[in-house]
Amino acid sequence: MKKYCFGIDVGGTTVKCGFFNTDGEVLEKWEIQTRTENNGENILPDIAKSINEKIKERQVNKEDIAGVGIGVPGPVNENGEVPCAVNLHWGYKNLVKEMEEMTGLKTKAGNDANVAALGEMWRGGGVGYHNLIMITLGTGVGGGIIVNEKIITGSHGAGGEIGHAHVEDDMEIACNCGNKGCLEQFASATGISYLARKMMEETDMPSVIRKENVSAKTVFDGVKEGDELAKKVADRFGYYLGKALANFGCVTDPEVFVIGGGVSKAGEVLLDYIKPYYQKYAFSACKDAVFALAKLGNDAGIYGAARLVLE
Amino acid sequence: MKKYCFGIDVGGTTVKCGFFNTDGEVLEKWEIQTRTENNGENILPDIAKSINEKIKERQVNKEDIAGVGIGVPGPVNENGEVPCAVNLHWGYKNLVKEMEEMTGLKTKAGNDANVAALGEMWRGGGVGYHNLIMITLGTGVGGGIIVNEKIITGSHGAGGEIGHAHVEDDMEIACNCGNKGCLEQFASATGISYLARKMMEETDMPSVIRKENVSAKTVFDGVKEGDELAKKVADRFGYYLGKALANFGCVTDPEVFVIGGGVSKAGEVLLDYIKPYYQKYAFSACKDAVFALAKLGNDAGIYGAARLVLE
Repeated sequence: MKKYCFGIDVGGTTVKCGFFNTDGEVLEKWEIQTRTENNGENILPDIAKSINEKIKERQVNKEDIAGVGIGVPGPVNENGEVPCAVNLHWGYKNLVKEMEEMTGLKTKAGNDANVAALGEMWRGGGVGYHNLIMITLGTGVGGGIIVNEKIITGSHGAGGEIGHAHVEDDMEIACNCGNKGCLEQFASATGISYLARKMMEETDMPSVIRKENVSAKTVFDGVKEGDELAKKVADRFGYYLGKALANFGCVTDPEVFVIGGGVSKAGEVLLDYIKPYYQKYAFSACKDAVFALAKLGNDAGIYGAARLVLE
Repeated sequence: MKKYCFGIDVGGTTVKCGFFNTDGEVLEKWEIQTRTENNGENILPDIAKSINEKIKERQVNKEDIAGVGIGVPGPVNENGEVPCAVNLHWGYKNLVKEMEEMTGLKTKAGNDANVAALGEMWRGGGVGYHNLIMITLGTGVGGGIIVNEKIITGSHGAGGEIGHAHVEDDMEIACNCGNKGCLEQFASATGISYLARKMMEETDMPSVIRKENVSAKTVFDGVKEGDELAKKVADRFGYYLGKALANFGCVTDPEVFVIGGGVSKAGEVLLDYIKPYYQKYAFSACKDAVFALAKLGNDAGIYGAARLVLE
């Protein structure tokens, strides 16, 4: 019976590291710098070094360690290879093989958004559920699909790329992905800011959100103050997201939708705007799905990565 | 090593039965009547009797039989229980337990549309693939999601109920499910007929499809004759279905979409109208997904049921 595992979340500027027991308690968290120079050739050796030092420092027997789970910002195939990860300056990388050689520990890897979903299932907003869809509302919109406690990776590593579902034919501006009318353009922090600016232009209604740099926070703060225009913007956001989640729901029929990312800091009020549209558009059998806020914040990645290696 | 298995597809009027070898070849097919009277209490005993007779008739050793797979028109949970199956007049039924008691054979059960998807993966349009989405365009629109060769059942048995994705806000007529604007209302045989009638009303354009009972077949026959209005109707159908498939694609990221059901008898021309819209709206990594027509027709259910028990 293994006692410990590592959960590693590789970001573009820092690598978050966690040392866990196999019950899912984090015993220690730390960060190292992500050195992206020279095609990010130091990133994996730096992580391996940090893990090996931690094992020595804590005088842990390697045989008691289940392994190392790693989440990376890019697609990861079933063999643990990364075809390309832009933010890390990586081209092809045989991540699992390299890490296993450098640490002597079993390694598993996954896409960071998918891994975060697994973390929320294990120790966050989705505890007690086995089938969930997580949606992360940050600068963009990320997602992770969990079925029977396993990540749906997809045949091109694009499982859970739900930020790029098409939700609006009448969108002239292109998404970062190249398409027009993606969910991300309306439901991310950037998207909510876009909706606010657009709706402010369309009306003369006085509002507390009429600020130069109106953000998702401005909007939901406005909602809490009872501002009518803020509520209209939030309603439009809820329409796009609730309807999209209803359509994802008829694919994998999850027990719970977990909403995370920076925008979710607005709290329960966010769900008040999403759920009515979800329930309006969802297939009858799916209408009673649970909605929950993510709980682990920036730690979802290390929790999920740790869970990955315990599968 | 088991040599044989049974694949059973229970419909509202007949039960299709297949006796297979474990390589996926059907050795014999036959049908029995579905007796729905008295809450369908005879349906399972009739099937068990037919299976037991077939074993005796063929003088097969029961130990050489892997089991019985059954597809039913309704949700089936992980324990092989059916909460309710309207077309069979069933309320709650512990299907797997009852069948195992009556046949002495391991039994597995699944929803008929999901099971048909598994059949197409095993021996039909999806051969060679492990991740697929099947969509059945019949009177309604059914679906089945396969990930790593397993059916996604969903937490309410509603996995793959993609006919009820919401695709049109401006729909006044209600779907059979109670919602308005479901994919089924535009992409099923009935839906294509609706689109044709609507578009005929909106224009005076002369057309070969101007018939009293314009059907999906009328439309696609018209397309093959080069009829302009028929092509417009087919294009609208392709818009709804292609866009919806693009949105399902970013959930499970399948290798292949398999299109079946009566409407798919139109042939490759059908795909010509779906694929351009799929490619327009799909997430970049998913744009090269394969499109294939189903090959097993009404036998997809017995093949998939047989495959179910070999998992």
